[in-house]
Amino acid sequence: MERTCGNGTLRLSDAGREVTLIGWVQKRRNFGSLVFIDLRDRSGLVQIVFDETISEKVKDVRSEFILQVWGTVVARQDPNPKIPTGEIEVRAKDVKIINTAATPPIMISDDTDALEDTRLKYRYLDLRRPSLQKILMTRHKVCMVTRKTLDSMGFVEVETPILARSTPEGARDYLVPSRLYNGKFWALPQSPQIYKQLLMIGGMEKYFQIARCFRDEDLRADRQPTFTQIDVEMSFVDENDVFAVVEKLMQEIFMEIRGYKVEDHFQRLTWKECMKRFGSDKPDLRYGYEINDISDLFANTEFMVFRNVLDNGGEVDALKFDAAAGHYSRKKLDELQEFIKHNFRAKALAWLKMEKGVLSGSIAKGISDAEKQALVERLGIADDDLVLIVADKPETAETALGALRIRLAHELDRLPKEETYKFLWVTDFPMFEWDEEEQRWQAAHHPFTAPRVNDIDELFTDPGNVMSRAYDLVLNGYEQLSGSIRIFDQNMQEKVFESIGMTMEQAHQKFGFFLDAFQYGTPPHGGFAIGLERLIMVLCGTDNIRDVVAFPTNNSAVDLMSDSPNIVDQAQLDILGLQIAEKAKKQ
Amino acid sequence: MERTCGNGTLRLSDAGREVTLIGWVQKRRNFGSLVFIDLRDRSGLVQIVFDETISEKVKDVRSEFILQVWGTVVARQDPNPKIPTGEIEVRAKDVKIINTAATPPIMISDDTDALEDTRLKYRYLDLRRPSLQKILMTRHKVCMVTRKTLDSMGFVEVETPILARSTPEGARDYLVPSRLYNGKFWALPQSPQIYKQLLMIGGMEKYFQIARCFRDEDLRADRQPTFTQIDVEMSFVDENDVFAVVEKLMQEIFMEIRGYKVEDHFQRLTWKECMKRFGSDKPDLRYGYEINDISDLFANTEFMVFRNVLDNGGEVDALKFDAAAGHYSRKKLDELQEFIKHNFRAKALAWLKMEKGVLSGSIAKGISDAEKQALVERLGIADDDLVLIVADKPETAETALGALRIRLAHELDRLPKEETYKFLWVTDFPMFEWDEEEQRWQAAHHPFTAPRVNDIDELFTDPGNVMSRAYDLVLNGYEQLSGSIRIFDQNMQEKVFESIGMTMEQAHQKFGFFLDAFQYGTPPHGGFAIGLERLIMVLCGTDNIRDVVAFPTNNSAVDLMSDSPNIVDQAQLDILGLQIAEKAKKQ
Repeated sequence: MERTCGNGTLRLSDAGREVTLIGWVQKRRNFGSLVFIDLRDRSGLVQIVFDETISEKVKDVRSEFILQVWGTVVARQDPNPKIPTGEIEVRAKDVKIINTAATPPIMISDDTDALEDTRLKYRYLDLRRPSLQKILMTRHKVCMVTRKTLDSMGFVEVETPILARSTPEGARDYLVPSRLYNGKFWALPQSPQIYKQLLMIGGMEKYFQIARCFRDEDLRADRQPTFTQIDVEMSFVDENDVFAVVEKLMQEIFMEIRGYKVEDHFQRLTWKECMKRFGSDKPDLRYGYEINDISDLFANTEFMVFRNVLDNGGEVDALKFDAAAGHYSRKKLDELQEFIKHNFRAKALAWLKMEKGVLSGSIAKGISDAEKQALVERLGIADDDLVLIVADKPETAETALGALRIRLAHELDRLPKEETYKFLWVTDFPMFEWDEEEQRWQAAHHPFTAPRVNDIDELFTDPGNVMSRAYDLVLNGYEQLSGSIRIFDQNMQEKVFESIGMTMEQAHQKFGFFLDAFQYGTPPHGGFAIGLERLIMVLCGTDNIRDVVAFPTNNSAVDLMSDSPNIVDQAQLDILGLQIAEKAKKQ
Repeated sequence: MERTCGNGTLRLSDAGREVTLIGWVQKRRNFGSLVFIDLRDRSGLVQIVFDETISEKVKDVRSEFILQVWGTVVARQDPNPKIPTGEIEVRAKDVKIINTAATPPIMISDDTDALEDTRLKYRYLDLRRPSLQKILMTRHKVCMVTRKTLDSMGFVEVETPILARSTPEGARDYLVPSRLYNGKFWALPQSPQIYKQLLMIGGMEKYFQIARCFRDEDLRADRQPTFTQIDVEMSFVDENDVFAVVEKLMQEIFMEIRGYKVEDHFQRLTWKECMKRFGSDKPDLRYGYEINDISDLFANTEFMVFRNVLDNGGEVDALKFDAAAGHYSRKKLDELQEFIKHNFRAKALAWLKMEKGVLSGSIAKGISDAEKQALVERLGIADDDLVLIVADKPETAETALGALRIRLAHELDRLPKEETYKFLWVTDFPMFEWDEEEQRWQAAHHPFTAPRVNDIDELFTDPGNVMSRAYDLVLNGYEQLSGSIRIFDQNMQEKVFESIGMTMEQAHQKFGFFLDAFQYGTPPHGGFAIGLERLIMVLCGTDNIRDVVAFPTNNSAVDLMSDSPNIVDQAQLDILGLQIAEKAKKQ
């Protein structure tokens, strides 16, 4: 169909140009014999003027009709600075109604007030909103840049199966019944993890995939049953090689999408450091406010609260916010205490304020002048500073103050005003975590993650202290990427299984063909996965995951548009050899 | 890990260079105190020489061990012209065994003699074969070029749902039981058809996706339960716009992968012409040998066989092969007759040969001299030419000769010797086909395909004669693409439903929300899908679909590597509210 250009691309420099435009009617206004129509397409909208010679032709035109318009671009007498085409309008010479439209059930505009569930039901209309179209285009661009960058580094995109085998911990697998083999099932992959490691064993050396993943998790507002990840695996690498790939990728993506120059190399912190300094394994580094372990200042304290904590292996941690004392009343500080009691089971929040050179606060009378003085010196406490102190088990004290750090930075508006992206590698995560229920150690990441080499001896002596070669990439306080260097040595693999109380025989029952594969010359390898939706959310500045998915499910994991999941014919179940359980039918 | 370059990239110009290489041991040979090892990586293989000062270090090395080698590139005294690195070898100075390997169950070489099922079971080893790696890299490249080309034309890649709604003709849907809503199901999409049309309604204008599709079809050697298609949809277009996109895309792909210049514009034929001239809706145009309707020459024939056929609405079709008479004995011609009787229910095959100016053959005595003369003139029959004739119902005569056309072109080795890609657009397919079982017309493509505009009136008077705006792209005799311009006008849609005996009410029950969507300003649109696996097969010159899939299922739709589909725990079925039917359990 004849069409000159996108409606939203016209500018003052186009004045005098004859154009043929196509689009949807955003708005129609009558001024006497003149009719003004805002015509919208993917590129934006432009005002069309129909004068008395032609306005009759559009008298029945309503919102969302599709028009083809022949006309001339002219400068506008009263420019509209709010839209990019605001300096011009198009004088229509002829018009054709391409299609009519019933009145849409939602307003098609970025400031729509329709409920989200209504918008999701009519997603095909919701998608006409410019902001959603822009996000989908950004998502496309991110994928393009990702592929271009990884391809240029020698990575090969390989499609791995969507009909896969159910994993041993299959409770989160979506199952797919087999028609040809009734009673048997496929599973949709929670990630391509096994396949990408098999590709390394298969000699592919550098693999990537923008991969669809499936996880049947319980309802959470920010989850979709299916999601997409930028999935990468490399052979013959260590952490430095992997990090270099990611850093390059992030540089390209942030430059292309945001015009933002990301650092050449990202800061690195071990998990222990992170917890100690920021009380979080995903600290937001756009602001400071580090946690200080001030236990040493109270080594000989007579203040019984601290005394008891320190004697029981706890610690005393402090967090100082400058120029904050005035912002936190007693009531507000009580709220902060409730917050950490409720969320972190912290016992209490102590606080100090420096006002006109005098330190006051909840523990001001409990601690000695010398201790106060030491504290002022250690933290550099100045007038109007607020100091929050938690004395508790180390993890509790750290995470409680870590949460307060975020809360106060936001409440005090201490985030940088300009667009800022602070990346951080967090490394050396604990290899194992204690399973209270089963009273044994479990792999924290997955049992194929390599332990730190100098910790092999500790695998059995002190599992809780063994660190792994797993890493996360954190951006502005959110985990964007997770990965690890994998075990490729069978001895090591056996030791790791043994340390979580599993014999190789049991391991084989559980991991089967995947473990078999490791014996035939497995290269050292490692990789990562980046959550695509979360990355797009950051790049587009939205905190609603449904904004970055073309056809999302709602908060109840239902596709309201197609009304899915839905019942199917008994005939369909019969050929699958399945019956709905009686219990389920009653629901 | 330290590594200079890919093993397969070293050339004579690298002589003297110090290198660090990594790879798998392809082969090890001992010559006295010297050890030769072919070291393979993704880029190819290179010969490493370990002299007596170092050969001890590799004395236990066997096939598929992984080595890191430090050495010097030197010119080879006896070059091996069979491999790209054959002019050089690497003298090892040091070596490290990175990993050992058990004896592989299959030979890792392109001339492996392992059974396909064994190779599929150990696919991770099979993938080390250079030919398979090359195909996967080609597949990656095709996807890269496709995305780059479509992106440059303004197309946006959008991921459509994998958990979708079961379609009305859902017998081929894979179902996914819902855990949150027991008794309800998702379905894996057979294609993104509905979603891509909704994206057009959503104003996306130009969509593409390299999309995973799922079709639970019965076993066929050349099918995989999941497949991938290059899926495209465009708004405000007619056939010419769509074809231009595809032609550009094919030009880019074939140039990038094969270095082959594809025609700027592809030939177009209507379905009727195709059937008439080539007896096929996907003719191979790399050779001629068109079918001739010679019915008119026998309008007044006294040859009863032809007479009866013509009187009953049949036709007489002929196919001439030059310089072929000598190749087809009576016995071979009888075989050809059996072939068309068996496959096309043709009644008989007549034939004529011109030998030394005399026309002989099965009907030489039945037809008159004048008819012979007319035939010789019409077909330009020369010495040693063979003419095959089928008199039958038009479709039978055409398809039978169409099949003989292909068979003889191959038997006579009449395909071009040089690499040739002949593209053909086939247009104007029949809109409806008669359903014998239900005794009514059915949509041949799908009921959203637009009919040819000048045929609207015939929708009710002569449905069998209505042509659609569906099109196929045929390459060297194989369908590579299928698509159509869709209906966007509700009146037309109603008429099409009516013509296949469906009321709008019934249509709504069947197509639900999708039909609802059409009322809100649907743009004219059309699109296509290219079967990616088939395209890669052509580009890589393989006729085994499993060669172009990283982890394929075998001929019985089983993944032998992971042994899937497989049984799952009863607990997993319980949370889905499902039971295996008793009948199925017994299987």
